[in-house]
Amino acid sequence: MFPGLSRRSLLAGGASLGGAMIAAAAGRAQEAPPGAALEPVPEDPTRVQGQPVLSENGYGSRSQFESEVRWRYPTATAHTSWSMTPLASGHGIVTPSGLHFERHHAGIPTIDPRAHSLILHGMVEEPLRFTMDDLMRLPAVSRMHFIECSGNTLTEWEEPTLRTVQGTHGLTSTSEWTGVKLSTLLEMAGLRDGAAWILAEGADAAVMTRSVPVGKVMDDAILAYAQNGEALRPEQGYPLRLLLPGFEGNMQIKWLRRLEVSDTPYMTREETSKYTDLMPDGRARQFTFVMDAKSVITFPSGAMRLPRPGYYEITGLAWSGRGKVAKVEVSADGGETWEEAALEGPVLDKCHTRFRLPWVWNGEEAVLQSRVTDETGYVQPTLEELVAVRGTDSVYHLNAIQSWRVAGDGEVTNVHA
Amino acid sequence: MFPGLSRRSLLAGGASLGGAMIAAAAGRAQEAPPGAALEPVPEDPTRVQGQPVLSENGYGSRSQFESEVRWRYPTATAHTSWSMTPLASGHGIVTPSGLHFERHHAGIPTIDPRAHSLILHGMVEEPLRFTMDDLMRLPAVSRMHFIECSGNTLTEWEEPTLRTVQGTHGLTSTSEWTGVKLSTLLEMAGLRDGAAWILAEGADAAVMTRSVPVGKVMDDAILAYAQNGEALRPEQGYPLRLLLPGFEGNMQIKWLRRLEVSDTPYMTREETSKYTDLMPDGRARQFTFVMDAKSVITFPSGAMRLPRPGYYEITGLAWSGRGKVAKVEVSADGGETWEEAALEGPVLDKCHTRFRLPWVWNGEEAVLQSRVTDETGYVQPTLEELVAVRGTDSVYHLNAIQSWRVAGDGEVTNVHA
Repeated sequence: MFPGLSRRSLLAGGASLGGAMIAAAAGRAQEAPPGAALEPVPEDPTRVQGQPVLSENGYGSRSQFESEVRWRYPTATAHTSWSMTPLASGHGIVTPSGLHFERHHAGIPTIDPRAHSLILHGMVEEPLRFTMDDLMRLPAVSRMHFIECSGNTLTEWEEPTLRTVQGTHGLTSTSEWTGVKLSTLLEMAGLRDGAAWILAEGADAAVMTRSVPVGKVMDDAILAYAQNGEALRPEQGYPLRLLLPGFEGNMQIKWLRRLEVSDTPYMTREETSKYTDLMPDGRARQFTFVMDAKSVITFPSGAMRLPRPGYYEITGLAWSGRGKVAKVEVSADGGETWEEAALEGPVLDKCHTRFRLPWVWNGEEAVLQSRVTDETGYVQPTLEELVAVRGTDSVYHLNAIQSWRVAGDGEVTNVHA
Repeated sequence: MFPGLSRRSLLAGGASLGGAMIAAAAGRAQEAPPGAALEPVPEDPTRVQGQPVLSENGYGSRSQFESEVRWRYPTATAHTSWSMTPLASGHGIVTPSGLHFERHHAGIPTIDPRAHSLILHGMVEEPLRFTMDDLMRLPAVSRMHFIECSGNTLTEWEEPTLRTVQGTHGLTSTSEWTGVKLSTLLEMAGLRDGAAWILAEGADAAVMTRSVPVGKVMDDAILAYAQNGEALRPEQGYPLRLLLPGFEGNMQIKWLRRLEVSDTPYMTREETSKYTDLMPDGRARQFTFVMDAKSVITFPSGAMRLPRPGYYEITGLAWSGRGKVAKVEVSADGGETWEEAALEGPVLDKCHTRFRLPWVWNGEEAVLQSRVTDETGYVQPTLEELVAVRGTDSVYHLNAIQSWRVAGDGEVTNVHA
């Protein structure tokens, strides 16, 4: 199960009774967030009664020793900006709702769910309006899916720019989403002949609007009102968002208030001026909806330091907007040779998949890379291969292989290799 | 896909543009929790800039309109007590970490992970001590599993007692857990001949101790340091807990500090005086580790009121400590007739599984029940069948079919039927 690993090599990690402690490899949080109530730390916790059940109004919070946070990219204002999930400290595939990445174009609106409704009109037999209570009475589904901003990794087209995997890849997160299939609503309303596109509109101050092909909607679009077992978080569209599994995040309209059916796309700002891919010939490629397969090693990753040679478990995330992850390979020599990583099950459709591979670091320089193949056979490209097709004038949809250089002293840095 | 449902029956739910709004069926939260900062609610959220990205130190919180909390059972003190997950407002299968049920015997200890270690000794070739950093460098696994307190439903042996599904069934929750397989540590230490049991000891003031068969440990036990993508919550054992998938919650020792290998069980207080099942012949059945298959309808459930006849989606959770859920049947007539519910995928081993069944309520009295069959063929018993074997002197391990009566006025109550 762990090739090349013997009891001896694990023990060499340093766990004998009385043995030396190992320095934190991944910069685990050691300070409480500002404002957090700090409990005294007893020398022997068995000698003092602990904290009572149901502190903090019955809704728990993290340990005072945990302080990982989303990191806001330093845009000019915090209202049209984004914040990134700390992937390096993540575990498994679920992103805690409090750490799901954000991208807002005019801030997070405050919406009373009792006053919110969704209108469905345009090329339908019967226009409909749904309150949140109406929607929550309809047949529901729950699905685990990633959402990735198409701007994820946008800093990395030309030179290695951001230091950590949170900076380079933190605009992707996975949740269990619950809601109503949008096809259920369209079947209630009745599509008219020729209906081909649906405009989705948000109730934020940007009035975010995108055109979605009807085929995608009938396939697997969800009107989500819940995330990870509870109501959507405000920054994820409370009380209602559109979920388009595998499509770029910007289309998955948050604070959803209106759906209009048409025979043609609406050519909104966000699908003409923005969210298009400028190609080397000067033309902008439009409607590049699907997020292609991508993977990244989260441990070890940028700005970490391996304390010494020996055993480590390389781990990371892989995903594809076209379906399931079929295979992840890992290289420790910059792509010269590859070894297949183990995939943590269940491997789900359009969902983060965690991969793991044991690795014994010999103390010499290494360049770590991961490469995903999805179930359609698509293989994640190198940056060189991607740039050969796309040029470097693009902003969005950079899904190239990421390289982390491990130096002889254990420092891990973002490199192009 | 939704038998018996036509466009007409869904529209009868009342969603026409300009149609009547439907009263909340499930008592959705409408008050902010005490102390929450309230944002002003604009009449039109598109006319005012929203809240900035990365408020609240980068770790998000719920909407001010959401206030579901764990409910503490009114024991004499809040230090040896339990709090229950609000299953009625849950979605999907993941329990938000802030709403995972609690059971503490001497409160929640405050433990600095940098000072915490785990000792493994007894009948091993080489006793070992692991810091948290040591453990986090070892090969890891992530698994979604339920944990159920064996005392879940203990109020319901003789008469219907608690009003809501949170009270009757709220001592079960599901998380994605990440950690090291305990078998990895045992392989490092080397088990001596005759090793058959392992004592697990917590670092809380109760110094909670339980004996675990080595076979279970080698099969699927995990030393979990993460829950739903981040560090364990303090009330779930931060920084380290034992996870024994499918076994009763009490054995899954929190704040784990010591493992001792033996050839015999340790006969601790929690496996002699407590956590045994008193049988009708006056003998106490010991070591009843596995949580048998169980299911419960969460909507509609006790203390709800259906506003009027018409379409509803019956939904709930099913689980088994012996493996996967194979089938869930639902009855609307107190067990006279049954219909098979749809299971939401992926159906995972020893994990909550959500079931759904469309139902048109004709306005007459109905008694709703669910009955799970697990992959071993075990069928959830009626309370009458369970009591025939177990009597009513037991406290733990009540896994009988739950009945909810829907009265002609829509009121839903807990009944024995």
